[in-house]
Amino acid sequence: MSDLPQVSEHRLLARLGALAEIGDTGDGGCARLALTDEDREGRDLVVGWMHDLGLDVTVDGIGNVVATQRGFDPALAPVMTGSHIDTVRTGGRFDGNYGVLSGLEVIEAVQTAGLTLARPLAVAFFTDEEGARFAPDMLGSLAYAGGIGVEDALDIVGIDGTTVGDELRRIGYDGGAPLPGRAPHAFVEVHVEQGPVLEAEGIAIGAVTGVQGISWQELTISGQSNHAGTTPMSMRHDAGFAAFAVGTFVRSLAIELGAPQVATVGKIDLEPNLVNVVARTARLTVDLRNTSEEALQDAEARLAAFLDELAAAEGVRIERRTLARFEPVAFDPRMIDLVESTAAGLGHSVRRMPSGAGHDAQMMARICPTSMVFVPSVGGISHNPAEYTAPADLVAGAQVLLQVMCHLAEGAPLDEM
Amino acid sequence: MSDLPQVSEHRLLARLGALAEIGDTGDGGCARLALTDEDREGRDLVVGWMHDLGLDVTVDGIGNVVATQRGFDPALAPVMTGSHIDTVRTGGRFDGNYGVLSGLEVIEAVQTAGLTLARPLAVAFFTDEEGARFAPDMLGSLAYAGGIGVEDALDIVGIDGTTVGDELRRIGYDGGAPLPGRAPHAFVEVHVEQGPVLEAEGIAIGAVTGVQGISWQELTISGQSNHAGTTPMSMRHDAGFAAFAVGTFVRSLAIELGAPQVATVGKIDLEPNLVNVVARTARLTVDLRNTSEEALQDAEARLAAFLDELAAAEGVRIERRTLARFEPVAFDPRMIDLVESTAAGLGHSVRRMPSGAGHDAQMMARICPTSMVFVPSVGGISHNPAEYTAPADLVAGAQVLLQVMCHLAEGAPLDEM
Repeated sequence: MSDLPQVSEHRLLARLGALAEIGDTGDGGCARLALTDEDREGRDLVVGWMHDLGLDVTVDGIGNVVATQRGFDPALAPVMTGSHIDTVRTGGRFDGNYGVLSGLEVIEAVQTAGLTLARPLAVAFFTDEEGARFAPDMLGSLAYAGGIGVEDALDIVGIDGTTVGDELRRIGYDGGAPLPGRAPHAFVEVHVEQGPVLEAEGIAIGAVTGVQGISWQELTISGQSNHAGTTPMSMRHDAGFAAFAVGTFVRSLAIELGAPQVATVGKIDLEPNLVNVVARTARLTVDLRNTSEEALQDAEARLAAFLDELAAAEGVRIERRTLARFEPVAFDPRMIDLVESTAAGLGHSVRRMPSGAGHDAQMMARICPTSMVFVPSVGGISHNPAEYTAPADLVAGAQVLLQVMCHLAEGAPLDEM
Repeated sequence: MSDLPQVSEHRLLARLGALAEIGDTGDGGCARLALTDEDREGRDLVVGWMHDLGLDVTVDGIGNVVATQRGFDPALAPVMTGSHIDTVRTGGRFDGNYGVLSGLEVIEAVQTAGLTLARPLAVAFFTDEEGARFAPDMLGSLAYAGGIGVEDALDIVGIDGTTVGDELRRIGYDGGAPLPGRAPHAFVEVHVEQGPVLEAEGIAIGAVTGVQGISWQELTISGQSNHAGTTPMSMRHDAGFAAFAVGTFVRSLAIELGAPQVATVGKIDLEPNLVNVVARTARLTVDLRNTSEEALQDAEARLAAFLDELAAAEGVRIERRTLARFEPVAFDPRMIDLVESTAAGLGHSVRRMPSGAGHDAQMMARICPTSMVFVPSVGGISHNPAEYTAPADLVAGAQVLLQVMCHLAEGAPLDEM
């Protein structure tokens, strides 16, 4: 292709800004938890843009939205991009949104250039990628790829006691498109790194080789509530202390196992949660991640052994529930090569790297050749209102996405990429 | 006194049962946080009983209620007993309530016996002894004893954002009796031990020698929220981890310092409190107690040093706020002797012991000779719906209270006790 279309920085930033106004937290961040009123508003805005571009828009039974631009041969499977527009409660404006709006920008740039490619181009936003309201995360893309039945997905109960099904109906995004979804020809997602590597190394583009495995557990620790002044330390069954011990253990575990192992207790709730009462119950989450399934299983096993010892030592009961468990994912080598060579061809510095975060692309990798394009996150900050990526980096990533999608949509068989 | 009145087990248990129905948590416990609707209902019930006994009932500016039975010489300072009827959120039915209702029972027994003593008898319930909604604890008796100005007390903001003053007015217990209150001739409070000592040693009555010092701090830890999957352990400023480290440190501290030092983190709240986000902020409380002021100061100093190290090591900011700080209190030796000899004279096993918990008596000790009577707590359990004391022990404690109060009210000067 000698005369490639170009993405527009102005349009891309304008759409990012407009979407960020919905659920604006006043400090640069966004709060659009999945299937809330704010999520509905964000969806309506993006769907409006999809219609403005004349795309064919479908909504499936878990609320995933796919917008398709026809190709010369509508029967061919599309080249798809996509990401999510839900956020965590204290999220930034780039995570997910950047990928979806870059996909729109790719299609608008192709339209503006007057091009029609052999294959259709599609851009999707998937439901509940963050998992901050309904576990597991990446729920919509998991359902698209057939990894969870739609009925099971709709029955999931969220942190506020609502269900996915009820909330989908409430916001009007319980669509009729079938699940699992149609396998695309290929899938490529552009996303902010959400980590510090690219910025620290001064590299513009990451060609993502795969995604860390994720293990999320919820622990419920049951002890005995008692008076904090009169109960000798030796007679306590303190659910709060046991939870704190888990929190410090997982830190030690991650340090002992070494990078890329990470471990986080991000959520804890005590009962009765009063200054002068030894806690009866603690409910907390443990998030373990590693690029190696073997190492991740080792971390899980060490945590389990620690919990057994802790329960015995403190005289507490510890119940474990898996909230999410995904094995590490390796992306398609041909797709990784394509991202890398495209970025290099555009004159960008590029490195191969795994993703520390989960992404919808890892679900799509189950059904089609997949990779991702990363752009730098300033300070490695994400899931935080201070999340930021410079405009030039946003444009660079979107242009790489455009050229990768156009190349794939020109109809070259994957083994000729 | 040859013909002493006798407390009625039936009446005492009936009143305990009736009061426990208000805020009944369905599991044997009570939830009547200070100045809530449930507290108002409990107050109304007890005040009704006070009026039924023909007592002179006053309410002061912080909502303390004092009911007085006249003596031969109404000008003499009364012999006072009292406690509290507010509870923690997961409280039992004896803590506080037993002392107030035993005081009522003493007066009714004296009335039933047709006795009039030289001095008035008074029974009080003090506002917000628990401190579970408004810190500091023992607020009402502190104000009665002149330890806090009423305006400062009314401005205190609770865990739900309300103020003491607004809530007092809302429930109609902002009375006109002056503060500080009139100093009684003497004050004696009967209370469940809330600890395991009496039961473990098979002793019926504790003659309380004083109260542990209490140090309550609220810590606010400010770190940086970030993505739990992509942020290497070494780059984190995890407010949650820092809080967990405090929770495990204070346990180690108490064990290192040895009994009677106790240390508890009973309350913690993270922000944003999500599974996949490193916490930005942690707010937690630390409750330290010791019978020695010197030892308590040592514990506080060690905690402070740990917090400084932790803040530097984790790159977090730790703000400290004192919620309550009371030095250990020593009760009046003559009053301790009187409780001990009265119990022994009634044939009960008795031991001297400090109180592990704070009590209104420690505030009254600032303005008059004071002691307390303890009865056994089964399993040492308190601040828990399972809190229990056997009826025979309840009656024994109330009868000791009766005889101590009658002795004091007959007019013997304190130096002749």
